[in-house]
Amino acid sequence: MKPTLQLDSHGRLRHLLTLEGLSSELLLQILDEAEIHDQALRGPDKRQATLTGRTVINLFFEPSTRTRSTFELAATRLSADVMNLQIAASSTSKGETLFDTLKTMEAMQADMFVVRHEASGAAHFFAEHAAPGVAILNAGDGRHAHPTQGLLDLFTIRRYKGPDSDCFKKLTVAIVGDVLHSRVARSDIHGLRTLGAKEIRVVAPPTLIPAGIEEMGVKVFHDLDAGLAGADVVMLLRLQKERMLGAFLPSLAEFHRDFGLTRARLAKLKPDTIVMHPGPINRGVEIGGDVAYGPHSLILQQVSHGIAVRMAVMSMILGEPRAPVRAKRRSRR
Amino acid sequence: MKPTLQLDSHGRLRHLLTLEGLSSELLLQILDEAEIHDQALRGPDKRQATLTGRTVINLFFEPSTRTRSTFELAATRLSADVMNLQIAASSTSKGETLFDTLKTMEAMQADMFVVRHEASGAAHFFAEHAAPGVAILNAGDGRHAHPTQGLLDLFTIRRYKGPDSDCFKKLTVAIVGDVLHSRVARSDIHGLRTLGAKEIRVVAPPTLIPAGIEEMGVKVFHDLDAGLAGADVVMLLRLQKERMLGAFLPSLAEFHRDFGLTRARLAKLKPDTIVMHPGPINRGVEIGGDVAYGPHSLILQQVSHGIAVRMAVMSMILGEPRAPVRAKRRSRR
Amino acid sequence: MKPTLQLDSHGRLRHLLTLEGLSSELLLQILDEAEIHDQALRGPDKRQATLTGRTVINLFFEPSTRTRSTFELAATRLSADVMNLQIAASSTSKGETLFDTLKTMEAMQADMFVVRHEASGAAHFFAEHAAPGVAILNAGDGRHAHPTQGLLDLFTIRRYKGPDSDCFKKLTVAIVGDVLHSRVARSDIHGLRTLGAKEIRVVAPPTLIPAGIEEMGVKVFHDLDAGLAGADVVMLLRLQKERMLGAFLPSLAEFHRDFGLTRARLAKLKPDTIVMHPGPINRGVEIGGDVAYGPHSLILQQVSHGIAVRMAVMSMILGEPRAPVRAKRRSRR
Repeated sequence: MKPTLQLDSHGRLRHLLTLEGLSSELLLQILDEAEIHDQALRGPDKRQATLTGRTVINLFFEPSTRTRSTFELAATRLSADVMNLQIAASSTSKGETLFDTLKTMEAMQADMFVVRHEASGAAHFFAEHAAPGVAILNAGDGRHAHPTQGLLDLFTIRRYKGPDSDCFKKLTVAIVGDVLHSRVARSDIHGLRTLGAKEIRVVAPPTLIPAGIEEMGVKVFHDLDAGLAGADVVMLLRLQKERMLGAFLPSLAEFHRDFGLTRARLAKLKPDTIVMHPGPINRGVEIGGDVAYGPHSLILQQVSHGIAVRMAVMSMILGEPRAPVRAKRRSRR
Repeated sequence: MKPTLQLDSHGRLRHLLTLEGLSSELLLQILDEAEIHDQALRGPDKRQATLTGRTVINLFFEPSTRTRSTFELAATRLSADVMNLQIAASSTSKGETLFDTLKTMEAMQADMFVVRHEASGAAHFFAEHAAPGVAILNAGDGRHAHPTQGLLDLFTIRRYKGPDSDCFKKLTVAIVGDVLHSRVARSDIHGLRTLGAKEIRVVAPPTLIPAGIEEMGVKVFHDLDAGLAGADVVMLLRLQKERMLGAFLPSLAEFHRDFGLTRARLAKLKPDTIVMHPGPINRGVEIGGDVAYGPHSLILQQVSHGIAVRMAVMSMILGEPRAPVRAKRRSRR
Repeated sequence: MKPTLQLDSHGRLRHLLTLEGLSSELLLQILDEAEIHDQALRGPDKRQATLTGRTVINLFFEPSTRTRSTFELAATRLSADVMNLQIAASSTSKGETLFDTLKTMEAMQADMFVVRHEASGAAHFFAEHAAPGVAILNAGDGRHAHPTQGLLDLFTIRRYKGPDSDCFKKLTVAIVGDVLHSRVARSDIHGLRTLGAKEIRVVAPPTLIPAGIEEMGVKVFHDLDAGLAGADVVMLLRLQKERMLGAFLPSLAEFHRDFGLTRARLAKLKPDTIVMHPGPINRGVEIGGDVAYGPHSLILQQVSHGIAVRMAVMSMILGEPRAPVRAKRRSRR
């Protein structure tokens, strides 16, 4: 992976593929931009003209109504023209046809692709082959990265533990659950490290911790109570039930007993601990329903912030005058 | 069911779940507003700015391309941002997950949900749990209600039997067909009663008449010719063929013979009798194709009026200044 | 088929069903209009207000994400309100229900239907039954016609062999592949003949050449090298792999060996030969991947031009003041 692929020669964001390698200045710039959008979304008219006439294509090789909705709404509210394409990954699994799809949709004068794919690295593949002036936004690729989720998590933490961006340096963050399969966990860890989080913990049974994760600068816990002790932020991960049973876990009930966040466990934590989850939740598995909608939970706020963060990234990448870049692209054709 | 759930403290429409309990003043206000939209839809530019920047989500747990299209067009022509979500009812049958879906989409700053669900009461469930400032429009819930269909039927009757709104008091209306399963029949009956229809009849074989329907103030007929005699308005219901055979009916041919509206039967009625059907029609079952496109039929006009009526309801609920309500909602998050 | 169905009493385009019978003046008028749109699509803001408030419905009875996307983008960029309807052809195969679908969507105040159907003649059926003021655009019907593909091919040829519109008179064009099943080939042949192409060849094994095609004024070749000799333009057709094997072809490898355009074959042609393909390509069947993205290929340019051509047709049909026509339609209801 080449993180520099994401920046143009002026150091501005060109694609968003991963939070790995992005500077704290750039991360905070995105969060600041998102604050402005979050404010604007509170009024009745949530439209602004920033991306009028630009074309954003949601290219989803893996179905996800919920994630697609957030990108669709973000682009629509920036006045972009949005088109949703749901493509069976099976029919385009080969790089050759991914390439054909990219080039064909580029030829339809698309300005940005929001790409979701089950294969790690798919968004990088698109970015490496995209024409100048065409932007790629990673909406989740395999186990690799989900950078806008990472950004909205950082935004939410700063909103409730800040407002000072230095707040991260005082925070102990516990990431709980299926770290092994989680692109969300990877993006969260990259972002939290860059912003200087005091301590990052991953808490899961050994079968759900990837080998060598300590090298990312995190502490590994296999006991939930130990992992939660003193945490300021608890980030729960979604358990992909369908691919879990048998291979990695004895039973969902056992997972809940050992690693589920219940009201009783929450009561032992600091009163200002915040609880986060990327959704959709599995009630009674990684989280109790009463915790999900309880006073510590920021799960719905995360959803709201997700729109603002995606609007920020889209407008930072596409909203500026890019006339010279675009002129170059067109003359090549 | 709490019909008052539909009104705010000033008696204005807040949700639209059922016509039951709505005053004749409010019904006529909607019809009057719809007249304005129907007029505007005759020009080449069918867009108006009323709901610019508002977000309307079509939440369809039961597939219905046709009904969804009318709501999508109505909202689009009011300049709202529309998002279509088709959700398998099976995966969200439990109240818990319906609740999660509502809260998640609310967090995406949705202003209105158009809800279609196979379970009676689903729209009420959403309205009971919706945040202040979020509106629910019932697009059909089980056998319970389909209020916008009821409104467009009232609109169509007044258009062709009015223009005076007192016209209903002189009308005998025959509702023919599968009354048992029909949410359309229920909404029509509620609306017609409130507007003072002289006589409302339901005409069907005994197996397709719900027990106790006389309490709604209707007369029951099991013979079509008797039921049609003297009728000013004939409202045919769609026969859900797939769930009919065997259980309720001996055969479609027999139903057509006994309860289908043919040209011969129509010839015996008053020359100014109007024929209506919510569509899509089953030719040769509840209606003959020559009747459907014949001079008495208002079936296509009903479709047109459906757009105007839905625009009226959407703009009455969302179009007014609701700043204080919305501000309250936002500050809660 | 009645080609005159496509024109109004002033000789202006009213529907677009086939290129057969359209005058060279009209074809060139469309290409000229498309040049303007193609220019406008190079800027960052690709929206124009031409069709504001008009409703365009994509009525696809045969799935085609790619073709639908081009029509959707074209209409959106003209500011029309676009609605996509994917309808299973099985459930509407009878003319009666096609008619019902047309009339119902017309009643929703649709201004234009983009129709794709597996049955030859489906678009004509719609045009014959459409209300005055409602336009039909054929997006491919069976083996019959795909007129916007024909237009974008003409546009591409003129762009690279012109700019003079007389350029066609000097060109030898070879159409290679499955001519038998190809609506694209038919539309290309009609357009090329009308614009006076010097020589039109079809090149394919005998099983893939329709009987009597010589009457369309083309020369038939069963040998690829002979068919390509001296060609200025090579138009490859997509092989519908799924319906090919066994019935028409011994194997895909054999087809590629005998009729695939490889780099070696291309090297024998004139240096300024251009290669076209309607896409999506089958790499290693009708074309080598290196040829598809090589210097002679205009495949991606065709895609771009397809948007401009569709915008041209849509704005020529719907963009002009049609108030009297529309008023007449409405009063009939």
